[in-house]
Amino acid sequence: MLGEFEQIAQIMAPLAQKAKGAFGLKDDAAVFQVNSGDEMVVTTDTLIAGVHFFADDPAETIAHKLLAVNLSDLAAMGAQPRYYTLNTSYPSEVKLDWIKQFANGLKQMQDEYGIILLGGDTTRTPGPLCLSVTAFGCVPERQALKRTTARVGDLICVSNTIGDGALGLLVAQGKIEDKSGHLLKSYRRPIPRTKLGPKLVGLATSCMDISDGLLSDFGHMGVGGEIDLAKIPLSPAAQQVLAEDSTLFPTILNGGDDYELLFCIDPKDKDRMLDTGETCDCQISVIGRITEGYDLVVLDETAQKVDIKTNGYRHF
Amino acid sequence: MLGEFEQIAQIMAPLAQKAKGAFGLKDDAAVFQVNSGDEMVVTTDTLIAGVHFFADDPAETIAHKLLAVNLSDLAAMGAQPRYYTLNTSYPSEVKLDWIKQFANGLKQMQDEYGIILLGGDTTRTPGPLCLSVTAFGCVPERQALKRTTARVGDLICVSNTIGDGALGLLVAQGKIEDKSGHLLKSYRRPIPRTKLGPKLVGLATSCMDISDGLLSDFGHMGVGGEIDLAKIPLSPAAQQVLAEDSTLFPTILNGGDDYELLFCIDPKDKDRMLDTGETCDCQISVIGRITEGYDLVVLDETAQKVDIKTNGYRHF
Repeated sequence: MLGEFEQIAQIMAPLAQKAKGAFGLKDDAAVFQVNSGDEMVVTTDTLIAGVHFFADDPAETIAHKLLAVNLSDLAAMGAQPRYYTLNTSYPSEVKLDWIKQFANGLKQMQDEYGIILLGGDTTRTPGPLCLSVTAFGCVPERQALKRTTARVGDLICVSNTIGDGALGLLVAQGKIEDKSGHLLKSYRRPIPRTKLGPKLVGLATSCMDISDGLLSDFGHMGVGGEIDLAKIPLSPAAQQVLAEDSTLFPTILNGGDDYELLFCIDPKDKDRMLDTGETCDCQISVIGRITEGYDLVVLDETAQKVDIKTNGYRHF
Repeated sequence: MLGEFEQIAQIMAPLAQKAKGAFGLKDDAAVFQVNSGDEMVVTTDTLIAGVHFFADDPAETIAHKLLAVNLSDLAAMGAQPRYYTLNTSYPSEVKLDWIKQFANGLKQMQDEYGIILLGGDTTRTPGPLCLSVTAFGCVPERQALKRTTARVGDLICVSNTIGDGALGLLVAQGKIEDKSGHLLKSYRRPIPRTKLGPKLVGLATSCMDISDGLLSDFGHMGVGGEIDLAKIPLSPAAQQVLAEDSTLFPTILNGGDDYELLFCIDPKDKDRMLDTGETCDCQISVIGRITEGYDLVVLDETAQKVDIKTNGYRHF
């Protein structure tokens, strides 16, 4: 096994090569500039083996998810992703090959999302593998999208499809089948909406990413709403699962791990929003509207209220 | 026990109150501005119970050390500390009272060093308590201090005293006595040199903080040097320990956990440097000089080479 310094130099430093201010990961800290007129957006997430992913998941998909969940938070603020720092705590069973594959997964994400490693810390732990990323993006000053700024009458929108991640977890647990592989892929390799997010600046009245389940996360928007069940966009794979077992519908709405954007727009901006979605390869669906008060009501096709538990995923 | 959201709202959100862009820790990410003419400095460190501190250390001192080690890295770059994000992974034995005391320790550090909590992530872990901080500071553009920029003939300087942290660890392990309490306090509550660091901008030719041991860390400066053993500043407590057991001298030089600044200056700036130290309540000692090549030579009082192992603390 390589020592700490050799490992950083050989495996991690190449990921920081494009950031001059990372100083080859050899200094006490890193330096970066912020363009005039921009402000910085920062977010951080920790993933732990056995809690947030399976210890035997492929190292590359763990790297993917670790960065994706952070990039998704940046997208939710309308920020362009730029840099990240990485804290790795390795248990003794993590060997050099694993770390190389993990770094390879980070590299793929860097290439795809234009982010660069800026620094980090590497430690050993007697506990499970523990990974934290802090991600930085930029957004024009005072333009960051926020969760709680929707207005009564706004349309409630989501990107792409809902529930694939939650069903993918059931696939990973061997509880349901996934003929196409789409669900497991959605769970392991969620796609952060980093193209869409910045395009919603000046368009969306509020925005967040769906990580704990659509209905539960809506509760964090601090407004009332009506959601039309029939308008919630489902992938063909999710539709197939539901056709075989309709009791899984609450899992789709409450299960979490979507990493799609949930946002609101003024109804007059609907066409502009649909065009924006197309330019970002995102299908946008209007699924409801903001109402007075603080309650979320779910309606079926006949506009009757449906009772669906709104408890999303909580860590404890 | 409070749930995740209640805990964040009641215990952590007050620490973020002064940062408008933290949005009360309720949004996907946080936002902050950078003053024109400044650039950002970012650093991150993870501390794990049983590896970097004792699980039964007081929660407040753990909070102190967690922030101090990060602030020390900012100081080493000459940066003014501003914000931090916090990732906490709690094992089940960590109860609400502990978290409140931990937050109290964070608050004390915020008040003392003018930093504000900007965001974070809270998770549960089946492993040991794992804490990561990512700290942000600012420095005038292109003025950040770096490790490897010292020149031949520069004087090698350190702030305050060396070895107290390493001896403090021996005290914590019950291996030596500490009548004054100074050594244990230095180990548990190191003082980051955040006043001195920014004042070294434009004065020091290179700078780093001593975390892995004076001699080992000097190796990261990428230059050769001579250090005069007799000039290494020792606290009265360290002198007393050495008087009783002189074999502990290598521990002082290689033991780590100093969090003092190791920096170089042009000899012509010596008086200016000593004045600067005084304005920051730091005693500065010149302990040697930069030489050609890459070797570090330690000299005794008669200018004879001394053989002291230079292996600092390595995490693995």
